[in-house]
Amino acid sequence: MKQTALLAETIAAIAPPSSVWHARARARLDTLTKPLGSLGRLEDIAAQIVAIHRECATTPLRKAVYVFAADHGITAEGVSAYPAEVTQQMVMNFLAGGAAINVLARLHHVEMNIVDAGVNADFADVPGLLHRKVRRGSRNMLHEAAMSDDELAQALSVGTTLASAAKEAGLQLLAVGEMGIGNTTAASAITAMLTGKPATEVTGKGTGLDDSAHANKCRVISAVIDEHRKICNKNGTIYPLEVLRCVGGLEIAAMTGMILGAAMHGIAIVIDGFISSAAAAVAFAIEPKIAGYLFAGHQSQEPGHRVLLEFMRLRPILSLDMRLGEGTGAVLAMPVIESALALYNEMATFTSAGISEAGL
Amino acid sequence: MKQTALLAETIAAIAPPSSVWHARARARLDTLTKPLGSLGRLEDIAAQIVAIHRECATTPLRKAVYVFAADHGITAEGVSAYPAEVTQQMVMNFLAGGAAINVLARLHHVEMNIVDAGVNADFADVPGLLHRKVRRGSRNMLHEAAMSDDELAQALSVGTTLASAAKEAGLQLLAVGEMGIGNTTAASAITAMLTGKPATEVTGKGTGLDDSAHANKCRVISAVIDEHRKICNKNGTIYPLEVLRCVGGLEIAAMTGMILGAAMHGIAIVIDGFISSAAAAVAFAIEPKIAGYLFAGHQSQEPGHRVLLEFMRLRPILSLDMRLGEGTGAVLAMPVIESALALYNEMATFTSAGISEAGL
Repeated sequence: MKQTALLAETIAAIAPPSSVWHARARARLDTLTKPLGSLGRLEDIAAQIVAIHRECATTPLRKAVYVFAADHGITAEGVSAYPAEVTQQMVMNFLAGGAAINVLARLHHVEMNIVDAGVNADFADVPGLLHRKVRRGSRNMLHEAAMSDDELAQALSVGTTLASAAKEAGLQLLAVGEMGIGNTTAASAITAMLTGKPATEVTGKGTGLDDSAHANKCRVISAVIDEHRKICNKNGTIYPLEVLRCVGGLEIAAMTGMILGAAMHGIAIVIDGFISSAAAAVAFAIEPKIAGYLFAGHQSQEPGHRVLLEFMRLRPILSLDMRLGEGTGAVLAMPVIESALALYNEMATFTSAGISEAGL
Repeated sequence: MKQTALLAETIAAIAPPSSVWHARARARLDTLTKPLGSLGRLEDIAAQIVAIHRECATTPLRKAVYVFAADHGITAEGVSAYPAEVTQQMVMNFLAGGAAINVLARLHHVEMNIVDAGVNADFADVPGLLHRKVRRGSRNMLHEAAMSDDELAQALSVGTTLASAAKEAGLQLLAVGEMGIGNTTAASAITAMLTGKPATEVTGKGTGLDDSAHANKCRVISAVIDEHRKICNKNGTIYPLEVLRCVGGLEIAAMTGMILGAAMHGIAIVIDGFISSAAAAVAFAIEPKIAGYLFAGHQSQEPGHRVLLEFMRLRPILSLDMRLGEGTGAVLAMPVIESALALYNEMATFTSAGISEAGL
């Protein structure tokens, strides 16, 4: 696939976070009233967010989560424990405020956005739902590419456009999550394509498959990879946009677009579990500079997730054996990120507090 | 040491959390709109807190952190990177609001209490400081027991009395933390005594020792263990109160008292890093039922901490390479615990949301 003008501009405009602010943050952290380095990863997180913001933003940050929903043609192959209509049912649950992500977003003061990127259902105009449907579900990737060129371009622009709106609105910390029955299959296929690992190593039990259904899922993913390998990997060169188009999904492509857009606008973005990490991995394969804007909210139980985090050299903030998606792990990591920034901003220094420094 | 009447009553009154409420919580979790078990450890946390509260308490919980401060005679042996006067300086920093724990307590709406259990300094009457000094620092455990029988009893009752006051005040989630230059040495000695591990396996670099100072610290701890082994371990039977008295500290004993008191009153309590875990391990060795009321806030970088968490069969909630103490890891875990409870209380069920259940 050729890049559209919008996408090409977005990618070209991505610069890494500020190394000057990063160094300044590290120096300040060493003056605070605590043994050197004793806040551990909170210090890394604080330095990263200061380098992204290029200032010492005060807490609470203005935060939003985007839950991208879409259906998947591959569900025809029996790859999910749940029927496909659960995607639309869960969108209604999000709109009614009863899903896990609603609870966490309310508790942690995170604005919630639900984006229909390609659900196989029609929704009324409901507050909180963003109508961005590209198509009623992606195509069955066992037999054809999940998206056409145009559909992929449209799905990517759903995300980049939302990132621009987030910038306009002054949001300072974003999270992405998803809902789409069948989307762990797409994420496993993306992971296998980008990393060269066999399907069996990157395929988990999704929402709860038994052993025989899991074996079937592995077979389907292997067949999907065989079907699209030639177009995605030419003489050892991987074409990440072709990977996304052939074996991705509409909500995954929208997340890839949002991550690229957030990086371009210099907004910090927290990824969630396996699916959103697959979206981020595609963005990373296109432009590795995006990694400076990413926080990995958590380590999920899906085996492919670890592979993707290693691929992007990201360490998860939380590790709570979650495997729900929806952005839940990303939003749950937000209080940790805000804590790191508050410590950075508000702690006394050894000098200001009149405390003796280490002598040994 | 003989148990005082107060301590004996406290221990005798400890009952485990409600198994009926635990089972009820598990059953309800399985009806919520998510794949079975997909909230991972959040489901364990929710079930545990419901079993402790014996009701579905609403969030936000009423939360408090207690930072126990004391000095240690063992600092005369050069076991810390910081001079002993940093204990009192840091107490002043807590009172001024500039320490890491102040920042986290403010951000997460946790009431902050600073308890002078035995600092080698006199403090004026300042709001937020609880004067509970047992003695100006523990004795040098290389040459004599850290505390006398009476001093230990007094330090324990500092904690049990505060737990009773917390119950009176309607607090629902407590955290314990500490400040005391030299207290990783006491915690390592306690760990070695309770678990039988050699000093080298349970001794870390504390606030930042170099290799030669670390080797000295290991030698000191080995000598301390030799000095007190006979009184703490008689024919293979370990006497946890003697361990606490001989190689503990005043703030550690106060935390042990608070943990026993919280368990007696049925209040959930979050432990922090290595030192507070040593206090909890003594309480656990006295009465293992306390474990049902404990949450391990985080896994610190001190090698002995992992040994203690395994000893109590606790899994840490966070793992962020922190090694600061003060209760910072415990307070940082509180939003995760509240998230688990909010999810339990507020998520829709499959039936209420009209969502199809798993079919495969």
